[in-house]
Amino acid sequence: MCELLGMSANVPTDICFSFTGFLTRGGGTGPHRDGWGIAFYEEGGYRDFRDPHPSVHSPIARLICDYPIKSHIVISHIRQANVGKVKLANTHPFTREMWGRPWCYAHNGQLTGWESLPLSFYRPVGSTDSEHAFCWLMGELRQRFPEPVDDCRQLWQGVHELCERLRGLGVFNLLLSDGQYLYSYCSTKLAHITRKSPFGEASLSDAEMMVNFVEHTTPNDVVSVVATEPLTDNERWVRMLPGELLVWHEGQIVGRYLAEATTE
Amino acid sequence: MCELLGMSANVPTDICFSFTGFLTRGGGTGPHRDGWGIAFYEEGGYRDFRDPHPSVHSPIARLICDYPIKSHIVISHIRQANVGKVKLANTHPFTREMWGRPWCYAHNGQLTGWESLPLSFYRPVGSTDSEHAFCWLMGELRQRFPEPVDDCRQLWQGVHELCERLRGLGVFNLLLSDGQYLYSYCSTKLAHITRKSPFGEASLSDAEMMVNFVEHTTPNDVVSVVATEPLTDNERWVRMLPGELLVWHEGQIVGRYLAEATTE
Repeated sequence: MCELLGMSANVPTDICFSFTGFLTRGGGTGPHRDGWGIAFYEEGGYRDFRDPHPSVHSPIARLICDYPIKSHIVISHIRQANVGKVKLANTHPFTREMWGRPWCYAHNGQLTGWESLPLSFYRPVGSTDSEHAFCWLMGELRQRFPEPVDDCRQLWQGVHELCERLRGLGVFNLLLSDGQYLYSYCSTKLAHITRKSPFGEASLSDAEMMVNFVEHTTPNDVVSVVATEPLTDNERWVRMLPGELLVWHEGQIVGRYLAEATTE
Repeated sequence: MCELLGMSANVPTDICFSFTGFLTRGGGTGPHRDGWGIAFYEEGGYRDFRDPHPSVHSPIARLICDYPIKSHIVISHIRQANVGKVKLANTHPFTREMWGRPWCYAHNGQLTGWESLPLSFYRPVGSTDSEHAFCWLMGELRQRFPEPVDDCRQLWQGVHELCERLRGLGVFNLLLSDGQYLYSYCSTKLAHITRKSPFGEASLSDAEMMVNFVEHTTPNDVVSVVATEPLTDNERWVRMLPGELLVWHEGQIVGRYLAEATTE
């Protein structure tokens, strides 16, 4: 299985701390040796770094740790290949432009019958179930919403419906963004934490590293992190429910959609 | 004005030598301080690195020099902003997916009346004339060729016609690729060189650096470089003509289209 890491923040924030722990799993403490990628939204722009090699040995990954890129939204992925061989074209995150916005997508899980998901506007470059599902998802959204909608909740509801259909094909944990919102959808495994004042200390589960967030933040900062598994061992992470979609904006949850059958 | 650098090769080749000279112009020997980017096609995959800061000070640019990425096709750009402020969303190269291929584009020049170029399928993320023209170009190609064409020459002819229309709006020097072919189109300034056996030595114009290609190649290698200005001072570069489109494949010119009025 692959692993996901996402961030939503109300101030440009670097993800060096979480990413350090996360990428240690990429061939270090974890089995995810088949590539990694990370995408940053900065001032309306977008860039990603992807490498089809284990993240623990990647000079590009080291650069990301050492050269803090400050961003409102981050999506990262480390890969353990199942469908599609190990190569750059199969390395998450994937991106497509819709409405003049760069949409970014990373998937954890495995689908069956994905080949018959009909494609319209967008086509995969590589050969993974993940990118095929992304192209289907974006094509469906574009057909429903040829233009950006005034009422975001229509869009969010649409994203949730499409995610639920993909969950019907197997395991579909998702991070998705258009640069304005971060979407996290849980099929089997995703957890999140929101850090805000008063800030405390955190220690990574996968590497010998502590951080005192008080030293790196101002009292108004709100920074949320979403990950397949909690990245720290001394904080309380919240596990998402199967079928749950969370919509994040500036570090806060602004939309929440549950599977129809879910009871809490 | 910005500067362009492209490469087409018949074997995966790193562009460290040319890129070292090229990026020195990005705030070093040249005035192009407003960002830079480089895109690599590798095994059917695509990745780019972009930074809205001067390339001479960019740790990411240094990494590209030190960590050779071997590729068949490379497109790079250093920017001196005219239309659109200095930010990541305005940093070349730009990319869009068509036919399941990642198309990459970098432009040198400035257009007038570009705002009225009609957009269809693709929309700009940033605010440059360059990206607007790219979205128009790709939209026009997609309307003419909804599917990949069997006879490439139809497509190449189409690319040339669209480039000629953009040249009518101002200065439009272009590098474009779909990962199979590299297109170079000259409006005012582009030069190229093809290196093949017997290989010799080359020395950069913009940095104290020599390379003996014999040490880095096999006798069958063919590597062509296209750049706004020749990058070396001891080799014979060929300057392109205004209105000329060259189509490159595995280091060789496989298509050439001239402006109607051009005589040689």
